[in-house]
Amino acid sequence: MINYKIVQEELGNIKQITEEEKIKKLSQDYYYFSPILSEKLADKTGDLVLQPTSEDEILHIAKICVKHQIPITIRGAGTGNYGQCIPLNGGIILDMTEMNKIQWIKSGIARVEAGVKMSILEREANKQGWELRMIPSTYKIATLGGFIGGGSGGIGSINYGQLRDRGNVHKVKVVTLEKEPRIIELIGDETQQINHAYGTNGIITEIEIPLAPAYNWSDFIVVFDDFMNAVKFGQVLSDSDGIIKKLVSIHAYPIPNYFLALKPYLPQGKSCAFLTIADNSFLPLQELVKEFRGEITYNPQDKQEKPLQLIEFTWNHTTFHARNIDPNLTYLQTFFWNLEQVEKMYKHFGDEVMIHLEFLRVGGKAIPAGLQLVKFTSEKRLNEIIKYHEDNGANIANPHTYILEDGGRKKVEPEQLKFKRMVDPFGLMNQGKMRAWNQ
Amino acid sequence: MINYKIVQEELGNIKQITEEEKIKKLSQDYYYFSPILSEKLADKTGDLVLQPTSEDEILHIAKICVKHQIPITIRGAGTGNYGQCIPLNGGIILDMTEMNKIQWIKSGIARVEAGVKMSILEREANKQGWELRMIPSTYKIATLGGFIGGGSGGIGSINYGQLRDRGNVHKVKVVTLEKEPRIIELIGDETQQINHAYGTNGIITEIEIPLAPAYNWSDFIVVFDDFMNAVKFGQVLSDSDGIIKKLVSIHAYPIPNYFLALKPYLPQGKSCAFLTIADNSFLPLQELVKEFRGEITYNPQDKQEKPLQLIEFTWNHTTFHARNIDPNLTYLQTFFWNLEQVEKMYKHFGDEVMIHLEFLRVGGKAIPAGLQLVKFTSEKRLNEIIKYHEDNGANIANPHTYILEDGGRKKVEPEQLKFKRMVDPFGLMNQGKMRAWNQ
Ligand SMILES: Cc1cc2nc3c(=O)[nH]c(=O)nc-3n(C[C@H](O)[C@H](O)[C@H](O)COP(=O)(O)OP(=O)(O)OC[C@H]3O[C@@H](n4cnc5c(N)ncnc54)[C@H](O)[C@@H]3O)c2cc1C
Ligand SMILES: Cc1cc2nc3c(=O)[nH]c(=O)nc-3n(C[C@H](O)[C@H](O)[C@H](O)COP(=O)(O)OP(=O)(O)OC[C@H]3O[C@@H](n4cnc5c(N)ncnc54)[C@H](O)[C@@H]3O)c2cc1C
Repeated sequence: MINYKIVQEELGNIKQITEEEKIKKLSQDYYYFSPILSEKLADKTGDLVLQPTSEDEILHIAKICVKHQIPITIRGAGTGNYGQCIPLNGGIILDMTEMNKIQWIKSGIARVEAGVKMSILEREANKQGWELRMIPSTYKIATLGGFIGGGSGGIGSINYGQLRDRGNVHKVKVVTLEKEPRIIELIGDETQQINHAYGTNGIITEIEIPLAPAYNWSDFIVVFDDFMNAVKFGQVLSDSDGIIKKLVSIHAYPIPNYFLALKPYLPQGKSCAFLTIADNSFLPLQELVKEFRGEITYNPQDKQEKPLQLIEFTWNHTTFHARNIDPNLTYLQTFFWNLEQVEKMYKHFGDEVMIHLEFLRVGGKAIPAGLQLVKFTSEKRLNEIIKYHEDNGANIANPHTYILEDGGRKKVEPEQLKFKRMVDPFGLMNQGKMRAWNQ
Repeated sequence: MINYKIVQEELGNIKQITEEEKIKKLSQDYYYFSPILSEKLADKTGDLVLQPTSEDEILHIAKICVKHQIPITIRGAGTGNYGQCIPLNGGIILDMTEMNKIQWIKSGIARVEAGVKMSILEREANKQGWELRMIPSTYKIATLGGFIGGGSGGIGSINYGQLRDRGNVHKVKVVTLEKEPRIIELIGDETQQINHAYGTNGIITEIEIPLAPAYNWSDFIVVFDDFMNAVKFGQVLSDSDGIIKKLVSIHAYPIPNYFLALKPYLPQGKSCAFLTIADNSFLPLQELVKEFRGEITYNPQDKQEKPLQLIEFTWNHTTFHARNIDPNLTYLQTFFWNLEQVEKMYKHFGDEVMIHLEFLRVGGKAIPAGLQLVKFTSEKRLNEIIKYHEDNGANIANPHTYILEDGGRKKVEPEQLKFKRMVDPFGLMNQGKMRAWNQ
């Protein structure tokens, strides 16, 4: 048994949260998008939340965790979807949101503390004509450390690929949970060791990432009578090197029905595309829309239109809005490698699996990634749906598991395991999430 | 017979060049890269060169050409390679280089007169944080109108594709050679009618093009023991969405031997890559180079290195430097659709066809475009080489013809012919270059 009284004393001035209700809240994330995770994780909670403000404090916390062998679960804004920051065995919740300084932004590179909100970093970068290469739709509150620890890509990935792609993360500083905790820096490819590792192998304290030049972006809504036409439009727009975009988000009817706030722009029966386009590309966009017999229903160039936060209806925000109307919905995450696969699933499942696509680049090629909405009936049926996709060549990154290897990558990343052996030899970090460690 | 005395009087104050030597010079371009064109075009010359400074003057010239039925050949800087601006039937040479005003640059779009030098436009755009999306390696003197009239792509095409890709040219104003010459404006897709039309169907006076955000670029030289390794490196770099580049130029040994000025950086026996990389991508570049066992021999970050104009060794400047050493060399222009095709040609032809590749995007995918150096023996052999490429699935845009349709596109562009019927009903413009017209 851990004696938290002693622990709390040893923590000294480090900010602590001890109210049970608050701890419970700070032990949760958006795991409840999955009925399967919901069942498994609803009652999990930590024992103590800490909110460090400096690397020194984090190093101190690491030492105490090692000394008392306390499980530790790191948390950014807690917007992950897979229970990635839910403690399975209690212990300390390390809330990183007070570690939020922007060290510098120069030559298209930013160096920041891991707990910085992406929206704040974006605002500062904008002042110098830069912006983040990619942001999740939760960027208003999500932290950069959490994005790297638990996210994958987002708005901008149609240009820069995903976080895992070489060049998108330059450096990270990590505090270890070794016998003698210390600070190490990972450079370039070495950062893969902590990328999407769910905080199982080191506490990221600082991050250096390259930025993108900021365009003057505008959001458009385009509607189509025929879903596959919308999909083809999305692919061609993604492949149109002369049209600058940042978001190509396609929604099969009836998904648009879930977007209540956008009702005026979404005529009944139509599939839709949500787009973010640079202001020097409106002209060719309009021609492309015409070619695919789409109709622009929201165009911010029209003076009377009120500004919309369109990106908050894309990526997993689509799921969020749909579940607000029908809590029985859940979702899948899919790499479709071509449009034929999309069409096949569309025809096969009908409204049981409503197709929502986000185009993104994988190895230099734009593909439609699915974040389909699934009418949940049973775990068995969900697994059948997943199997059918995989049998047809689409790859599912299962969002209904909190186990690292069972999600996106499907296999143990040997380098992450090796790194964990080094930096977390006692296995204190985010216990139960990395299967390879437990085995 | 045209009575040039009357013509010259009617031209009034418009600047005329009448010295035979000067006219001869201004009737030429870089056709001599091709031994076949050399033979056919060496003696061609115009009768009179005009240098208009305004649209009004151009309109006036158009009227006079129509009235006296004078052939007219438009000319930018005359850096084309296919004899595109060499008059086959004498007549007026319209030198556009004094039509060079930059009307405005705003929101990532530039509006300019067609005769503006690309380097001057680039400099002005830079002041606002923008740059041209793509430039030919002749950009220092080449005009934007000539690039659109006779070029295709260049440094930057690895990001934005080619001029023909939707969105890369927004608007052009054109003076017609109709019975009553007039000014018309083409918008968006309509600009395809004059794109790469060799000035056969209208005098472009003004152009509106979208720009690219300017990065802080640096040029690198990387050398490889094995050519195919260099090629694979080029493909992976092109496909690396997280590494920002603008030029990926690959040269099989012994091509580097022709680059005398770069000798210190090009060890004997090695193939090389010339790269332009954004300063926020040096770190991942170095890792990629290592992965492919390349060696960086020129890195401008090293303080002692003198700055090189590396892009002037790429695209068709490679041919230029090689021909300076061995005037018997000529070249091909090739779309390879995969690396297997490259390897096959490399092994098949050996040093008879030395492979030089420029990676560029076509429909969203980076491909290696060839500008191979060919040891010329006879036209028959050259055609055999072309045929062998095409039989193996590579597409050659034959640079040994001044006929529009026999070059890149291989077929009459119906829209260009239709447009020519309207704007040049008397067939005065660049006579003999558009086969469809003559038939
Ligand atoms: C509506 C909705 C939309 C979403 N859209 C997207 C999207 O577009 N793209 C996308 O990729 N994700 C998306 N997500 C998932 C999530 O919001 C993002 O990945 C987000 O970036 C996570 O940031 P966070 O600060 O909330 O991280 P958290 O959820 O707090 O943490 C995520 C993981 O990272 C670990 N971690 C956090 N900080 C650190 C640190 N400093 N060191 C080491 N490990 C750490 C945690 O332990 C956890 O395992 C979405 C989620 C929701 C609910
Ligand atoms: C060493 C070398 C390297 C090169 N590299 C490249 C390269 O990287 N990429 C590339 O695309 N090309 C390249 N080229 C070809 C050429 O330099 C470019 O296409 C250049 O942009 C042409 O511009 P210019 O002003 O010299 O045009 P010109 O050669 O003067 O004209 C080209 C064609 O356009 C027509 N034209 C010119 N102005 C107008 C106008 N205002 N209205 C209508 N028609 C007009 C002319 O009649 C002619 O048919 C290269 C050539 C050389 C010699």
